[in-house]
Amino acid sequence: MIDYDGCFSSAARTMQASAIRKMGGLGGRVSDLISFAPGFPAPELFAWEEFRDVAQSVLSGSDPSVLQYGSTRGYGPLVEALAQILSERGIAATPEEILVTTGSQQALDLTARVFIDPGSVVLVELPTYTGGITAFNNAQATLVGVGQDSDGIDLEDLDRVTVRERAAGRRIAFLYVVPNFQNPTGLLMSLEKRQRLLEWAARRNVLIIEDDPYGALYFDDVAAAGDTRPIKADDRDGRVVYLSSFSKTVAPGFRVAWVAAPTAITAKLEVAKQAADLCTGGLDQRIVYEVWKRGVLTARLPKLRSHYQEQRTVMTRALRRELGNLVSWPEPKGGFFLWAAFPERVNTDALLTRALARAVVYVAGSAFYVDGRSSNLARLAFSAPSAARIEEGVRRLAAAVREELDVSTSSVLATPGAPGRPASP
Amino acid sequence: MIDYDGCFSSAARTMQASAIRKMGGLGGRVSDLISFAPGFPAPELFAWEEFRDVAQSVLSGSDPSVLQYGSTRGYGPLVEALAQILSERGIAATPEEILVTTGSQQALDLTARVFIDPGSVVLVELPTYTGGITAFNNAQATLVGVGQDSDGIDLEDLDRVTVRERAAGRRIAFLYVVPNFQNPTGLLMSLEKRQRLLEWAARRNVLIIEDDPYGALYFDDVAAAGDTRPIKADDRDGRVVYLSSFSKTVAPGFRVAWVAAPTAITAKLEVAKQAADLCTGGLDQRIVYEVWKRGVLTARLPKLRSHYQEQRTVMTRALRRELGNLVSWPEPKGGFFLWAAFPERVNTDALLTRALARAVVYVAGSAFYVDGRSSNLARLAFSAPSAARIEEGVRRLAAAVREELDVSTSSVLATPGAPGRPASP
Repeated sequence: MIDYDGCFSSAARTMQASAIRKMGGLGGRVSDLISFAPGFPAPELFAWEEFRDVAQSVLSGSDPSVLQYGSTRGYGPLVEALAQILSERGIAATPEEILVTTGSQQALDLTARVFIDPGSVVLVELPTYTGGITAFNNAQATLVGVGQDSDGIDLEDLDRVTVRERAAGRRIAFLYVVPNFQNPTGLLMSLEKRQRLLEWAARRNVLIIEDDPYGALYFDDVAAAGDTRPIKADDRDGRVVYLSSFSKTVAPGFRVAWVAAPTAITAKLEVAKQAADLCTGGLDQRIVYEVWKRGVLTARLPKLRSHYQEQRTVMTRALRRELGNLVSWPEPKGGFFLWAAFPERVNTDALLTRALARAVVYVAGSAFYVDGRSSNLARLAFSAPSAARIEEGVRRLAAAVREELDVSTSSVLATPGAPGRPASP
Repeated sequence: MIDYDGCFSSAARTMQASAIRKMGGLGGRVSDLISFAPGFPAPELFAWEEFRDVAQSVLSGSDPSVLQYGSTRGYGPLVEALAQILSERGIAATPEEILVTTGSQQALDLTARVFIDPGSVVLVELPTYTGGITAFNNAQATLVGVGQDSDGIDLEDLDRVTVRERAAGRRIAFLYVVPNFQNPTGLLMSLEKRQRLLEWAARRNVLIIEDDPYGALYFDDVAAAGDTRPIKADDRDGRVVYLSSFSKTVAPGFRVAWVAAPTAITAKLEVAKQAADLCTGGLDQRIVYEVWKRGVLTARLPKLRSHYQEQRTVMTRALRRELGNLVSWPEPKGGFFLWAAFPERVNTDALLTRALARAVVYVAGSAFYVDGRSSNLARLAFSAPSAARIEEGVRRLAAAVREELDVSTSSVLATPGAPGRPASP
């Protein structure tokens, strides 16, 4: 028998499976499961008819390059389109500064490989997106968390942490932030804070990786397009690497996303991508391009925004009704997620067992914290289930929470002086 | 101005662009270029009509999972189909041992990350596939070359190199081989040598990465299906990681390939893939699966084989006619490539300038050697150009070779005693 453990690289030995992906695998095993776990877009909003139309025309065979190996940089017309899409977001980027990636996850991975040496520090928000955590971890980064305020990253904590890490002789590879409707908190970084963050980055000479999958999906009742202006739009120094994606606005099955960065960085990411997968799928890129070119994408955005806004309303009302003040959250102004805080003695890792017994699932807050904390927090994705399923899922979740509270109360009563299960902030 | 060089990881600083991809970029810049450079399949053989049919049905919208985030492991029915395809090649693999990848390049990349520590030795054939070289290089492997005989890798050299590297205290991550119609040489490893290689690997406890993109494309006039039996088929110990792809048999634009390996390895590759791109494209996987399920793939294979066989014949006849005994090659028994050897004083790196001036291009042998050698060798891909273009391309190439020979002869004559440009074997 071969000792496979002995065969693996040290990076492989510390690789961790994604907590969200694990939750995603439960669907088939729990009957009638309602899942608030993965950030899936609503498939009934996909432009199926237009996809069929486009597929017919691009698969005519008249352009053989559609299914041939393509340029690593990306399908030319799509790259040009991205320059225009970026320009509408306030970002001036030439085609040389743009790279198409196989989903934003690949952009995170390439970024990790191009900037991180084993032991390099990557600064992340507390909490932050698990896909970033796994990509940076796999490159053997040391992930260091920075607190958040209601308007985004805590700049004082950021500076304190940066000074501390550098004083300890560690190299800071970059800061990773998700300013628009952050995953998992749904927080929107204020425009003023974005400016101050850029000034701070210049002063401390730190690169910023800005991940923006949700910017186009703001909720009209509490936010506007102007609130989502990317940090990259005001990046005069060329220290921001901007990531965005069509997964939430067209469909994730196409695996088409992109990076905009200074040419020196884009060129390096391109070389890394050559070895990672040669090129992004040709059919996928053409479908996304044609959907954009025909105006389908732009026309659908208001529908997507109002749909997800309504989903959020359904979830927040159901939570208030079912749990009253046993739950609170920062108001999501866009995106897919609600960051729920239960009473402190509810540990959401422990609660999962009860929730699963009632056929509802979420992602426990611990998945998003790089400091190892367990907590009373949970990410609830309201994007994919129907309104009726959201209502029912929240009822199940509320029952699980009340049960957990009953048990923890009685166990405290039964064992005088024993603390409830500790929960971090 | 930011010092980007100072921002990059040490891995990024040594990343090298693929020589083949560079050649691929010339098409737009040289008018009427005939390219023998990239190993492109012939797009007129793609099943365009069936792709359109399948796209219509899978994009009906009745199955929303088509365009949703998918399982990292791969689309379930496709994984089951792969088990059957593997079984037809003599490989018994359960679905748990199979992972769908975004092209074989991703499989090479994941393999690199899972097995290679910086400085680990990867044993490769001299010459070997550039995509393997770049993936292993990016993981900071030390690539060590092993000679080849006409029937594949030189087992004595392999053992000598292995003993030498281990004696020097270096860890051997794996041996990388392409037994069927090797890229770039077109060589077919004999069945007897495959057995001896397996025995050697067991004796020396070395993992084997077997890359098999071309096995289904043998040429009936000189080979048979039985000659392509994968090494993995006889792997009783679980020390072979087998890679294959639909890029050459369906179309590369779909980016669908796979790995078969012991479950402990597949599980690790899957975790690495989560962070690399979450999942392979959903539409791409379904089209490939449906094409297989409908029998289109199996029915087309004989056509593909006879087409590429005819392409080979056109190229070999043209070379013989245009260059006589100024060129030789090992007979390609399948695949896409002819490995041409010109007279020793023709250096194929230098020849490229003359070839480009005549609007023909190939990949110089130096791209495939990890020992830095330049040589009189070139990889000529006969897979994509039409017969007429192959004829014309060979005429242009022959003219370039004759010109180079004239110049090197006259320069030797003009400078008595001065050697011609040295060429390695």
